[in-house]
Amino acid sequence: MTPKQSYLSCLDTLKPVRDALDVFNGKWKLPILVSIMVGNERFTDIQHSISCITPKVLAKELKDLEEHKLIRRVIINEYPVKILYRPEPYAESIIPIIDALKEWGLNHRKKLFT
Amino acid sequence: MTPKQSYLSCLDTLKPVRDALDVFNGKWKLPILVSIMVGNERFTDIQHSISCITPKVLAKELKDLEEHKLIRRVIINEYPVKILYRPEPYAESIIPIIDALKEWGLNHRKKLFT
Repeated sequence: MTPKQSYLSCLDTLKPVRDALDVFNGKWKLPILVSIMVGNERFTDIQHSISCITPKVLAKELKDLEEHKLIRRVIINEYPVKILYRPEPYAESIIPIIDALKEWGLNHRKKLFT
Repeated sequence: MTPKQSYLSCLDTLKPVRDALDVFNGKWKLPILVSIMVGNERFTDIQHSISCITPKVLAKELKDLEEHKLIRRVIINEYPVKILYRPEPYAESIIPIIDALKEWGLNHRKKLFT
C-alpha cells in the first residue's frame, strides 16, 4: 500500500478523531465534564473546582457540552430559582478517552523528565 | 465521598489528561503524526496530505512533535540536502488514544444526527 493509499484509509480514522477533538478541544471541556461527573452541580461549585476559569468561559463551555448532549441543565423552581448541571448517561462514553489520555500523559511525563 | 473529595482524586486523573491534551491540542498534530506514521516523509508530501495546512504552521507543529520525541528529522547528505521526517517507535504509544477518539467520534456523529 503506497503512503498515499494508506493515508486515505487513515482519513477514515482521522475524520472521527477530528470530530472528537473538536468536542474536547481546548483545556476546559474535559475538566468541566469530570467535575460535573463527580457531583459538582452548581455553577459556582464547578467554577471553584477548576482553577483559573472565568465565569464567561465556563458559561460558554457548559453550553457547548449541553449541545453535545453530554450534560443537561436542571431548573429547580424555588426562590430564587436554582440551576443545576448534571451529566447525561452519554457522558460515560468519554471514560475510555480519559483513560487513554491519562495513561499516555503519565508515561509522557516520565519519558520527558527521566 | 463528597464531590470535593472525589474531585480531588480526579485531579490525579486530570493532570495527566491535561498533559496529553497539551501535546495533541489543536487540529494539526494528530493528522500530521498519522501522515508520517503511514509513510509520508518529505515536508511537501506531509503538507499535501493534510488539507489547508500552511508551511509555517506545519514547520512549527513538526518542531513540537520532535520536542515531544514522537518524530525525528533525518538529514540525507545529498545535493541538494534531503530532510525526511520519520516516526519514533514512541509514536506507537498514541494508537490507543487514536482508537478511543475514533470510536467516540464515530458514535458521536450518529448520536447528533440520528
